[in-house]
Amino acid sequence: MANKLKALYINCSIKKDGTKSHTQLLMNRSAQILEKEGVLVKSIHALDYKIGFGMEKDLNPEQEDQWPEIQAMIDEADILVIGSPIWLGVKASVATLVIERMYAYSGDYNDKGQYLYYGKVGGVVITGNEDGAKAVAMDVLYALSHMGYTIPPQVDCAWLGEAGPGPSYGDTEFKGEPVDRNGYDNNFTNRNATIMSWNLMHHAKMLQKNNGIDSEGNNASKWRNFTNAEDQDPQKLPKGWK
Amino acid sequence: MANKLKALYINCSIKKDGTKSHTQLLMNRSAQILEKEGVLVKSIHALDYKIGFGMEKDLNPEQEDQWPEIQAMIDEADILVIGSPIWLGVKASVATLVIERMYAYSGDYNDKGQYLYYGKVGGVVITGNEDGAKAVAMDVLYALSHMGYTIPPQVDCAWLGEAGPGPSYGDTEFKGEPVDRNGYDNNFTNRNATIMSWNLMHHAKMLQKNNGIDSEGNNASKWRNFTNAEDQDPQKLPKGWK
Amino acid sequence: MANKLKALYINCSIKKDGTKSHTQLLMNRSAQILEKEGVLVKSIHALDYKIGFGMEKDLNPEQEDQWPEIQAMIDEADILVIGSPIWLGVKASVATLVIERMYAYSGDYNDKGQYLYYGKVGGVVITGNEDGAKAVAMDVLYALSHMGYTIPPQVDCAWLGEAGPGPSYGDTEFKGEPVDRNGYDNNFTNRNATIMSWNLMHHAKMLQKNNGIDSEGNNASKWRNFTNAEDQDPQKLPKGWK
Amino acid sequence: MANKLKALYINCSIKKDGTKSHTQLLMNRSAQILEKEGVLVKSIHALDYKIGFGMEKDLNPEQEDQWPEIQAMIDEADILVIGSPIWLGVKASVATLVIERMYAYSGDYNDKGQYLYYGKVGGVVITGNEDGAKAVAMDVLYALSHMGYTIPPQVDCAWLGEAGPGPSYGDTEFKGEPVDRNGYDNNFTNRNATIMSWNLMHHAKMLQKNNGIDSEGNNASKWRNFTNAEDQDPQKLPKGWK
Repeated sequence: MANKLKALYINCSIKKDGTKSHTQLLMNRSAQILEKEGVLVKSIHALDYKIGFGMEKDLNPEQEDQWPEIQAMIDEADILVIGSPIWLGVKASVATLVIERMYAYSGDYNDKGQYLYYGKVGGVVITGNEDGAKAVAMDVLYALSHMGYTIPPQVDCAWLGEAGPGPSYGDTEFKGEPVDRNGYDNNFTNRNATIMSWNLMHHAKMLQKNNGIDSEGNNASKWRNFTNAEDQDPQKLPKGWK
Repeated sequence: MANKLKALYINCSIKKDGTKSHTQLLMNRSAQILEKEGVLVKSIHALDYKIGFGMEKDLNPEQEDQWPEIQAMIDEADILVIGSPIWLGVKASVATLVIERMYAYSGDYNDKGQYLYYGKVGGVVITGNEDGAKAVAMDVLYALSHMGYTIPPQVDCAWLGEAGPGPSYGDTEFKGEPVDRNGYDNNFTNRNATIMSWNLMHHAKMLQKNNGIDSEGNNASKWRNFTNAEDQDPQKLPKGWK
Repeated sequence: MANKLKALYINCSIKKDGTKSHTQLLMNRSAQILEKEGVLVKSIHALDYKIGFGMEKDLNPEQEDQWPEIQAMIDEADILVIGSPIWLGVKASVATLVIERMYAYSGDYNDKGQYLYYGKVGGVVITGNEDGAKAVAMDVLYALSHMGYTIPPQVDCAWLGEAGPGPSYGDTEFKGEPVDRNGYDNNFTNRNATIMSWNLMHHAKMLQKNNGIDSEGNNASKWRNFTNAEDQDPQKLPKGWK
Repeated sequence: MANKLKALYINCSIKKDGTKSHTQLLMNRSAQILEKEGVLVKSIHALDYKIGFGMEKDLNPEQEDQWPEIQAMIDEADILVIGSPIWLGVKASVATLVIERMYAYSGDYNDKGQYLYYGKVGGVVITGNEDGAKAVAMDVLYALSHMGYTIPPQVDCAWLGEAGPGPSYGDTEFKGEPVDRNGYDNNFTNRNATIMSWNLMHHAKMLQKNNGIDSEGNNASKWRNFTNAEDQDPQKLPKGWK
């Protein structure tokens, strides 16, 4: 019988105090879908840990660095969801830092000789009061894919308010006035969060059943043992199909 | 026995004459890997077709529009690879146009009531003489993912010359001088093109074996029939795991 | 006495019929500010012209190409404003095409031996019903800057609706229901459109008064005649100031 | 007589030890051009300071935060140049952090009632061993422009090696082999660094001579006192010019 899947949610809010993060609220809704469907789910607030700067696996003792604790959770999880607010239309500094630190491990190998993150799936949750969700999703999902994660369809969900300053996700008041549209009832956000959550589970199960990604041709050091690009004539077009 | 997989490569070069496209040369190398491994592969040059502008499925008779012919091939293919050059650090106008036209169909459904492109996998091939490959990959892969494609790990491959004007992929001379580094021998490009090609096949096979993506929770109109975001308490954190 | 400034607005909507473009409505508000302040303003709908694909100045006779007519207006204008809708979080295909065609001229020189577009200022107007304004602004403003335009502060303005499908800028009804927030009264959009318009004029006047950008060190072929990077010691830090 | 201009270069390398930063080497070449032309130039390594996370001006005492010292230098400088390496195709975490902290001040006003950074000019220096320079430039220059900086033409310079892992800017050996192309002799990089440096000076002087940006219409609270977007008819096209 298959082991239970594990999912890790990392909140990359720039707020030191995670209880004030709006992004966490939307992350929680996705996390609970997974939990109710039998996935073991953990959610951490990145800034609860000391994370050093640098393209290294472990920055101790140069800096006080708790990254290896986070990395151990990432390694254990089948599903990774990055949560990020939007600042100036792009992902938060903490999200950038988290991805850099993960990147330092991306040259390691899994049991099949593939890059470490192969066989895992990734997604992203975003909140902001205005604009930039797709830009953040592009950036985060590409980084995960580049490091070895499989990206199921539509694994980004976001909430944004109308153009201009305004309430954040989950706010009950803004500038002293009660808020009637704080995102909780937004059909579009709820639908996308649901689809994201299910597609992460569907792909994680499919990969688990398949014992990860097949290993031909995607081993960074043995790719020449398989049909490979170097041996192909760049002038030759494929035959086509009818 | 499983049907043979089909792959479509669409070259979005801005050169009217596809035989002058450098991007095609790298696309061919990937296409042949698939072909040799038993995939039916077709490669088309987008500008060989008249493609109208507009967020519509069929722009005839307003404009002379052959897009529906391309869409039929996209619908038939299990694997889609977009080829694009880089101009000003971003994807070409033709790639943008191709994606817009695909997007007009993205609200249609497949047999399982999921969005049309669910169950297919996508990748991207890029060439340029300088910079912008990751920016193009981010943009194209996100668009495919947003429309329903599954994105396997590392399904972008690129060749770029050194900073500044210089030879393009496959050039044998530049400004009258013979070229010694035209990309054909670039280990990094060849390795990435190989990994991309295999990961596209591995995921397409896995999805075929699974009869596409499981259908719980990802149907755009029936998501409320499953555990969904609207019903979850945004204040509740997941239990965690040990 | 200074000549009157000229401004060109190019609408890169993907709608063939410019009268149906929502982006045009917001462009008009900015254009009228300039007109009322004494600038000569012209607004064109790109798709009213046949524009060929390719990195060439003039694509006739290979393709039927009216781009040179548009280029003549660009060359005459002191201020250029690109209007673009958002599709899939990025700028429209028509905006990409317009910028590619401008780029083919970017190696030409002005009277001072600088690149052609030096001494001009650029901005961008964006509408969409959801997300991506900053991503489009980044892309368009960078392209203009890269080709030689000066970018004043805050020269992007946008309107976006709440997350999810909804009314476009200026719509009076959506799915049969009257619309109460169509952007016309959005303080944020109106303020930004105003700031954009004035900063474009202020910088264009400043550049006109200065007779364009001073010419030391920015001539693509004579840069070695001035203090230049090649002659500097990369190991040497600047002295600092107190 | 005009005061001497001041320029601040902030290196956002993720290396704790600034003496190991390759980006610094290219920054130095630009900095020296300015210094030799009479500008007072200071260069700092961001990670020499403790910088807290959060959208706040001063994060003491919650976190140990030296940001206000950096902000004082930014406020004093007429020219700001951000230096950033590239990781995963985007700007470094430290650059993201620096921009977030600057952003917390961006709602303040200068003497003319304009946003704080009005009247200043910005640029960016980038190094990496492969790809992403334009993506980083887009992101950084847009952020500066959005906060109030004027962006002169072509104020980004970069060095990148050929596709794939390889030597960084200024390296004399790579994997034990001597390096013959480390960027120091790259004409393209040297030319762009030169053009950037001069355009920053030309625009800073022009703005100084003009006593900053003229103040009509760009004051965030008084924009309605001038010809403004709210009062314009969105249906009315500009008259055009002949």
